[in-house]
Amino acid sequence: MALIVQKFGGSSVGDANKIKHVAKRVIETQKAGNQVVVVVSAMGDTTDELIDLAQSVAEDPYESPREMDMLLTSGERISMALLAIAINAAGAQSRSFTGSQAGIMTSAKHGDARISEVTPFRIQEALDAGDIAIVAGFQGFNKDSKDITTLGRGGSDTTAVALAAALKADVCEIYSDVDGVYTADPRVIPAARKLDSIDIESMLELAGAGAKILHIRAVEYARRHNVDLRVRSTFSTDPGTIVYSSKAGENMEEPIVSGIATDKGQAKITVIGIPDVPGKAAEVFNTVASAGANIDMIVQNTPTGSDVTDRVSDISFTLPLGDLGRVAGALDAAKANLGFRDLEQDANIGKLSVVGAGMRTHSGVSATLFSALATAGINIEMISTSEIRISVITSADQLDAAARAVHTAFELDSDVEAVVYAGTGR
Amino acid sequence: MALIVQKFGGSSVGDANKIKHVAKRVIETQKAGNQVVVVVSAMGDTTDELIDLAQSVAEDPYESPREMDMLLTSGERISMALLAIAINAAGAQSRSFTGSQAGIMTSAKHGDARISEVTPFRIQEALDAGDIAIVAGFQGFNKDSKDITTLGRGGSDTTAVALAAALKADVCEIYSDVDGVYTADPRVIPAARKLDSIDIESMLELAGAGAKILHIRAVEYARRHNVDLRVRSTFSTDPGTIVYSSKAGENMEEPIVSGIATDKGQAKITVIGIPDVPGKAAEVFNTVASAGANIDMIVQNTPTGSDVTDRVSDISFTLPLGDLGRVAGALDAAKANLGFRDLEQDANIGKLSVVGAGMRTHSGVSATLFSALATAGINIEMISTSEIRISVITSADQLDAAARAVHTAFELDSDVEAVVYAGTGR
Repeated sequence: MALIVQKFGGSSVGDANKIKHVAKRVIETQKAGNQVVVVVSAMGDTTDELIDLAQSVAEDPYESPREMDMLLTSGERISMALLAIAINAAGAQSRSFTGSQAGIMTSAKHGDARISEVTPFRIQEALDAGDIAIVAGFQGFNKDSKDITTLGRGGSDTTAVALAAALKADVCEIYSDVDGVYTADPRVIPAARKLDSIDIESMLELAGAGAKILHIRAVEYARRHNVDLRVRSTFSTDPGTIVYSSKAGENMEEPIVSGIATDKGQAKITVIGIPDVPGKAAEVFNTVASAGANIDMIVQNTPTGSDVTDRVSDISFTLPLGDLGRVAGALDAAKANLGFRDLEQDANIGKLSVVGAGMRTHSGVSATLFSALATAGINIEMISTSEIRISVITSADQLDAAARAVHTAFELDSDVEAVVYAGTGR
Repeated sequence: MALIVQKFGGSSVGDANKIKHVAKRVIETQKAGNQVVVVVSAMGDTTDELIDLAQSVAEDPYESPREMDMLLTSGERISMALLAIAINAAGAQSRSFTGSQAGIMTSAKHGDARISEVTPFRIQEALDAGDIAIVAGFQGFNKDSKDITTLGRGGSDTTAVALAAALKADVCEIYSDVDGVYTADPRVIPAARKLDSIDIESMLELAGAGAKILHIRAVEYARRHNVDLRVRSTFSTDPGTIVYSSKAGENMEEPIVSGIATDKGQAKITVIGIPDVPGKAAEVFNTVASAGANIDMIVQNTPTGSDVTDRVSDISFTLPLGDLGRVAGALDAAKANLGFRDLEQDANIGKLSVVGAGMRTHSGVSATLFSALATAGINIEMISTSEIRISVITSADQLDAAARAVHTAFELDSDVEAVVYAGTGR
């Protein structure tokens, strides 16, 4: 008998009919001879509605982070109870559990807590009794404060993966309105092809490079705990894409390029004319870090200048678009201190990443990439690489054309047009 | 420094503006030098909306009582978090607690759990830290099953009284849209007068006799634990009515009649021609009890019959209107067994009760009552009395006239017209 963890996002449980549909699917999984744990997000727009309510009683409700967590966790409480009621009414037996009841222990940071330990005693009990266990995604509790916490972005996926790891589940299925992992975002590249399988390292790079299908945090958790994931659609019977983390995937053929990710949510800052003395770059990035931004790509030009004492260089880096104003402001405020000449901001960039575990053993990937981009007339502003990824920065308005050219160059194009997918919820 | 428990019902926290208003009141109470614990119900129609949702995923969601409790408790979770956010935004410090976090332990009966123990350690901690503690009404948890429970009707009032008792609060204030306890329902008797104070025994009899202002369960809990209550309006500064349970009320002058309650939610069944042999009445009431109804008043006629062996009598009793059909059906089904001749049902009755602690020491109350009813031409169908209450059954259409006549006869009429009040929530 297999143990399957199934996670259903907010759009999968968006209304009563969808909840009944999910109930049916879950029961079918159990009837096929499996033990089933279901992790649910809040219904559709519930979270946004609760945030609106909070903003109608306080200018900045996040000044009460503990209370915001108390408020928002009611969303999953509603969806999980409704799903359990629907399952019971359809003739199976189920019980719902809050994050705290499911043993999801976290750090104390409200709104963005990290899972520290998972002790799913009550879930195991429910499974042993033949029940379907429904668990609230996105939430946990802190042992010291005894307070309810939420896990922040990607929280429900992470709950599902963490439970799968703790329960030693055979697979963790992530359901949404997308039927799998594609070689590229089908909204950008209609010829994108659904993958039957992908290795977890490539999935991690794709998620990190902006692919929205799985949250990087959940993928990283799965990789660390050897949890196999299956990405599939709530509304079709397609088996979707298996993401191999365990040894089961070891014999799988590793394609040179698994997929392409694009990201328009990045911006670029260039610090011009910074003195080329040791420690200056560190000072710049300390200033950026103090402003609370995670930087992604960094390029430093070769220093220029007539003599060693007045040599200056330029440093460019990319960061999330939403952090641009704050970071630029912080750097400007520290201008005298840091001693640079000028600051350039560019909100109009795009990042294109090519990912594949096969890159480790195959050469020529960058040659194919750069010649495809050159042929398409696309200018590259920055480059960064990992062992299994190459990312380039282009201007935002050239990003889609760049992606199409590269997708074709790596022979990823499908003959049939993909169904278009939406982003995943929390 | 006094410790005050304040309970706000669903209509008091029905929208963002009302929540902000309640936040202001609570802060004022703290600024006046008090420690404050606030118990809240779910916002306005939240509970009904959640029940509707449940009914849209299952024909009878109450077949999953554990899950219904999980669902419905999200209502208070939302209102308590919003109130805490509003209080914090207004410059005071507060923390919200679920029933479980507040130490409200209950029996295991989902949907209608009884409070078994209250261990408000975390509430005391919050108060000691100078915080306002917000507690979810209507909910608790069962120690053995570790499951969330709800307290059923009158649950939030009972939560407030139970916390007041456990914390040894100086007073438990019950806020609603009514500004106190009246000598009668002002919707029926516009001349009803607001009482400055009333003794808990009389309040208990009034609540039991159909007055909607306080739930009998909360009043009974307050009486047993010597908790003084204050009934007042969320939307006025009127001090309302103090309900004395403690010794503080011992010197209070006890009026002969404190108030009048009317109840149209009752029905009458008469079992005609039942054999006058020992045990037959018990059989009848066992049948009624098996059908799950609580009976209120009982009258048995003097037996009639030509000789001792075939003497028969009639038994009349009143019961909640909603139970009438079920109980009548159960009796009919047992007709052969019970041996009665006929069954009469009357859904068209009303109960009028006159309550006053002074009845213990004053005579003449029933004389005044019956002559007032006779003068008004009102027919009395049944009578029952307690030490401090006389109740009579009239026809439903004569009830209001009866109440007005009796209110006047006991000199309870006010010179000014009362504000009309609505029923309390859960």
